[in-house]
Amino acid sequence: MKTMETYAVSFGNVTRHVPVHEPMPGVHIPLVSFLGDVELTRVFAEQLAKHVPAETQMLVTVETSPIPLAHVIASMVGLPYLVVRKHRRSYMERPLIQEVESFMLGKKDVLWLDSRVAEKMLNQKLTLITDVVVSGGTMAAMERLVRRAGGEIVGRLAAFRQGEPETDVFALAELPVL
Amino acid sequence: MKTMETYAVSFGNVTRHVPVHEPMPGVHIPLVSFLGDVELTRVFAEQLAKHVPAETQMLVTVETSPIPLAHVIASMVGLPYLVVRKHRRSYMERPLIQEVESFMLGKKDVLWLDSRVAEKMLNQKLTLITDVVVSGGTMAAMERLVRRAGGEIVGRLAAFRQGEPETDVFALAELPVL
Repeated sequence: MKTMETYAVSFGNVTRHVPVHEPMPGVHIPLVSFLGDVELTRVFAEQLAKHVPAETQMLVTVETSPIPLAHVIASMVGLPYLVVRKHRRSYMERPLIQEVESFMLGKKDVLWLDSRVAEKMLNQKLTLITDVVVSGGTMAAMERLVRRAGGEIVGRLAAFRQGEPETDVFALAELPVL
Repeated sequence: MKTMETYAVSFGNVTRHVPVHEPMPGVHIPLVSFLGDVELTRVFAEQLAKHVPAETQMLVTVETSPIPLAHVIASMVGLPYLVVRKHRRSYMERPLIQEVESFMLGKKDVLWLDSRVAEKMLNQKLTLITDVVVSGGTMAAMERLVRRAGGEIVGRLAAFRQGEPETDVFALAELPVL
């Protein structure tokens, strides 16, 4: 359907008419982004903050699009957060590397965790934060990274679930596959 | 100097002992990151927000590390912000592409701007936000992208200046090259 160029996503008092992407013929997915959207980020962060388990000592997110959400949730609950990277940086030392299959990119994604960030996870209770969970592959790879770094996952939170993720994640809202 | 493993960076009441990176033999640079640091981001954002020119209609930043800073400044001044990407995403449509020489990565960086983001810049007055300006190459490339999208740059703000950038940018603090 060539006419389906935007899709209305509503949450609380906020509505966004987001672009629709066609990753493969006949499959259309709404593209919600917290990047650049202070108001949308705030309303989701306020609700997600209530679901951060009390024993959480740190939040963990992954670049790039969930970063504003994790930042605002962290400021609300008064916890630090760590960012798993999707690209190698020249300053990384002995990074942990974890492969992931990403639905959005249609190729093997690789997660990178600088050893100086990984050290902060040791013996910590961490809650994962992301924006959209589709297959759950990225979240599962983040979880493996955290465990390899000696941390323990106590929560898995997403703003949106899209489809049927294979991972046990709490999502505030559903995004359809059109 | 093998002992120089961290460097103390202070701003306002906040001090961070940051790692030191050696991008080439004998050159040591402190690595400050706003990713994951709510308090550091807030103190810099509060000061930078005062320097956003009054005529600004939108902020622009670049992934990944300056995103929290741009997000918090945007929320303080009540303006939207746009994010220039450093990697192609599968959902991008007719992206504008701009090469940049990045000191940190030691290789050609490429900036990507989805046409749906570029369209928002048309006839807008924009202020660039970044975390650390070294050569100014990334900021100059952002500026070219914004101009190609039909926007006008009215301000250039950075948290830190490191060395002698070739671009005219307001920075709150200096980071030494050690």
